[in-house]
Amino acid sequence: MSKSNDFIQYFLSHRTVTNELIEKIGTEHVNYQPTPTSMPARKLVNHMLKSFYQFTAAAAKQEPKQLFDQEEDASLTELAETYTSETKKLIEAMSDEDFSETVDLTEMLGVKLPAEKVLNLAMDHEIHHKGNLFVYVREMGHTELPMFVKQGG
Amino acid sequence: MSKSNDFIQYFLSHRTVTNELIEKIGTEHVNYQPTPTSMPARKLVNHMLKSFYQFTAAAAKQEPKQLFDQEEDASLTELAETYTSETKKLIEAMSDEDFSETVDLTEMLGVKLPAEKVLNLAMDHEIHHKGNLFVYVREMGHTELPMFVKQGG
Repeated sequence: MSKSNDFIQYFLSHRTVTNELIEKIGTEHVNYQPTPTSMPARKLVNHMLKSFYQFTAAAAKQEPKQLFDQEEDASLTELAETYTSETKKLIEAMSDEDFSETVDLTEMLGVKLPAEKVLNLAMDHEIHHKGNLFVYVREMGHTELPMFVKQGG
Repeated sequence: MSKSNDFIQYFLSHRTVTNELIEKIGTEHVNYQPTPTSMPARKLVNHMLKSFYQFTAAAAKQEPKQLFDQEEDASLTELAETYTSETKKLIEAMSDEDFSETVDLTEMLGVKLPAEKVLNLAMDHEIHHKGNLFVYVREMGHTELPMFVKQGG
């Protein structure tokens, strides 16, 4: 299996769960924040989706596109669908060699890393914030929540 | 660098942060739970530390040791220190070849996986629950929290 197929499977095993949680956030809860210093739900979701897309664009050496004219007018589900499919496209276009290319993240993180490491960092960032989101969604009143990762999905 | 050194660095880049959060949990908060269906703080911490140790023992094909006579008498900090150092020892003893060995997790997860995949799954599990823990600790009143990962640590 190619590295990009492999990584897409890994990406979707977590992103599918992120998107299931996003679907549970009712419009009355988009500004929910567990404490005054926490990111509100909508901001957290946006941060997750956008960071992954930007990390992937950097790894693929592509310019990230402006995916929405007015991001604030889109529903969380629309954001989730668009960012997920555009992120997937970027990964699909990467060859095995692209995974070893050095990516200059000096501005974002102060380091240069192989593309594969950038993608793994993006995954860890997603899993971390999805872990936050699980607590948010439970606090919104949901008690039937998925497993943290969807194996073979 | 050997695979075990590489993985220890990755493990500690997250576990150091887990342990910093654990240190912030005062004795008055060990039973804190965000909602009635959430794991209480102490149970969550115990689950994180123990799962990683058990996943690693499985990956290293070692019998996990009983590390405490009375786990419930130990402080969270004692649990964190002991589980972290014993987990580290298990990884240190693994050769590069051990990372490719097939590990039978039929009882735990219904699958057989290469040891390296078992360790990566353990990392994802840690990052997920550390993401939960960040919200718990903020809800306990802490506003100065570390980054989700400690690079070069």
